[in-house]
Amino acid sequence: MPSEPVPRRSPTVAEVAALAGVGKATAARTLGNYGSVSPAARARVMAAAEKLRYRPNNLARSMTTGRTQTIGVVVADIGNPFFGGVMRGITDRCEEDGYAAIVLSTDETLEEEKAAVSVLMRQKVDGLIVASAAVTAADAGHLQDATARGIPVVLMDRLIEGIDLPAVIVDNREAIRNATRFLLREGHDRIAFAWGPVAEKPSTSVEDVLALSERDIWSATERLHGYLEALDGAGIPFDPALVTGCELTVEDTAIAVRDMLTLPEPPTAILTTETNAMVGALQAIRQSGLSYPRDVSLIGFDDNSWSSVMDPPLTMIAQPMTHLGETAAEQLMAIIAGTAEPAHTELMRTEFRERRSTAPPRTRGAPGQYASRR
Amino acid sequence: MPSEPVPRRSPTVAEVAALAGVGKATAARTLGNYGSVSPAARARVMAAAEKLRYRPNNLARSMTTGRTQTIGVVVADIGNPFFGGVMRGITDRCEEDGYAAIVLSTDETLEEEKAAVSVLMRQKVDGLIVASAAVTAADAGHLQDATARGIPVVLMDRLIEGIDLPAVIVDNREAIRNATRFLLREGHDRIAFAWGPVAEKPSTSVEDVLALSERDIWSATERLHGYLEALDGAGIPFDPALVTGCELTVEDTAIAVRDMLTLPEPPTAILTTETNAMVGALQAIRQSGLSYPRDVSLIGFDDNSWSSVMDPPLTMIAQPMTHLGETAAEQLMAIIAGTAEPAHTELMRTEFRERRSTAPPRTRGAPGQYASRR
Repeated sequence: MPSEPVPRRSPTVAEVAALAGVGKATAARTLGNYGSVSPAARARVMAAAEKLRYRPNNLARSMTTGRTQTIGVVVADIGNPFFGGVMRGITDRCEEDGYAAIVLSTDETLEEEKAAVSVLMRQKVDGLIVASAAVTAADAGHLQDATARGIPVVLMDRLIEGIDLPAVIVDNREAIRNATRFLLREGHDRIAFAWGPVAEKPSTSVEDVLALSERDIWSATERLHGYLEALDGAGIPFDPALVTGCELTVEDTAIAVRDMLTLPEPPTAILTTETNAMVGALQAIRQSGLSYPRDVSLIGFDDNSWSSVMDPPLTMIAQPMTHLGETAAEQLMAIIAGTAEPAHTELMRTEFRERRSTAPPRTRGAPGQYASRR
Repeated sequence: MPSEPVPRRSPTVAEVAALAGVGKATAARTLGNYGSVSPAARARVMAAAEKLRYRPNNLARSMTTGRTQTIGVVVADIGNPFFGGVMRGITDRCEEDGYAAIVLSTDETLEEEKAAVSVLMRQKVDGLIVASAAVTAADAGHLQDATARGIPVVLMDRLIEGIDLPAVIVDNREAIRNATRFLLREGHDRIAFAWGPVAEKPSTSVEDVLALSERDIWSATERLHGYLEALDGAGIPFDPALVTGCELTVEDTAIAVRDMLTLPEPPTAILTTETNAMVGALQAIRQSGLSYPRDVSLIGFDDNSWSSVMDPPLTMIAQPMTHLGETAAEQLMAIIAGTAEPAHTELMRTEFRERRSTAPPRTRGAPGQYASRR
């Protein structure tokens, strides 16, 4: 603790200006970090501010600059390394322009997301980047409200149907379509998909699965469509037994995949659309006494450092996490500065990192088995 | 976008109160979420606020309640799953009391940490939880300032030497001491330690390593001491060649561990103190054509879902991440509410999760080799 008591009231800009021997406008520009100030004046103001323990006031700043130099970020799950990577990009880009990014995590629930947006507006952020849990415009009143009140919003990672806001997203559909085609080219035609949409009872048709997926966030739906398009393009009939309908956890995925592996015609390859789906699939393969890629091929979404030290290393789809975050921050700051183009969507591509977790399917010996029919 | 233009000025509490037909104090209590309000009055106020598009004002709230119901969290690296887990605990506990937690990430630099604290004070947070990059009191002026200005600070994950602030930490020393003893009991006496403190030139003595570690954050220093204490207790002389001095990245760890594995007396076990140190060690083992636990045993810090699907699964130390976050939030809110005990430190224990990445060292055949001397 400091040895002398410190007054609780923060000094005013005028007091800092007086001690620094500069005009109030110069002090305000320096302390508010806007406009032009000579290096000498800036140094004097900063020294005076330090000496007086000046603490900038949100509202005072807003009244002079109209800005707090702060943006709010709402993510679904701060514990997900994907959002960790995105945040690094946002933070780095913000720093360049003297902005700070504050984050709230919503646990993928719309209710918490609305509360988070309300908190950030109360904090008078200059704009918002949101990875929204909203699926359609009906869920997104809070984002339209923010925009209407002059707080620009950039969507990140997910689009919302019927909402015209700038967005920075990844081409999830192409990523999964290409990964599925890769497996098809290797000779697989029993390709499992984890995670599919959560289902209360087993789906029996593609219509069932698509109807469920309409309640999913954009990125999940796009991944499913990529899978279906690739199957369709190859003339492979869709088998609902190969799409998980379980809760989106490691444990439930392990159970669902284990069940698939005991089907009369089990999958010879598994596409996993999230880190936890891959971990669950790996558990299931081990618990079933199988090994990859010998018995079943694997491709996952969201590359990470573990994938390359698995034995064998995993073939993964990598998202441009940092670049996604940087671009969303850049778009938002351009809108705040009034230099942005009209709302548009920026679509980024993923990278396919081929390692050694896939192989052609083994030909099964038993007559009547799927592989022998080809 | 809504079809009619919305006025930019937010209505006042008085306007909301008038429309709701309640007194201003009742409207303020409802909108500020404090004190007692009848359900009927609350419903009328909320309806009026919705109709008028009321947006609570930071400062207005602060003036009536003295609080913004917001706490600031400063973490070293939001992309680290450890902090992801801690944030989940903080957020969950905050929600119970109607608080929001906003996060800033500092990339483990003191400069960014100071900027982050300044931003959060400008945002008028009611208190701070900080995983600080400060090592001694000389680095921690910004935290003492905050406290002096009435913004309570709870340290999380790391202590700062010479600073008396409440803290919630994990017993890193005991965790590593126990893990080292586990390896000693299995018969290892060439136990490598990754990460040791970053060194510009190779350390030649325990004094060298300890001097370097004095510039490290608290948790890293504690882990090193746990290792040294266990060796000391078993009468094993310290070998500086078995402590990495590389930069704290996956790539540099892989190089450092690979070099150790070519020593005349290579380590038979490796203790890794961070996720990325484990990934680097695994790369080195594979690149050296070795396998674990046959050629080298492995124990890591910070358990995660991948550890259990590695083949063989990894023996790991698990930190109580969520509980750590919950407890830090609980302490801070108690201080804000004025119901806290005087500053104290809460020390939490880790869990040792034994899996299958360790085994007794192989006896080496060549005469003069270390193992044959015992």
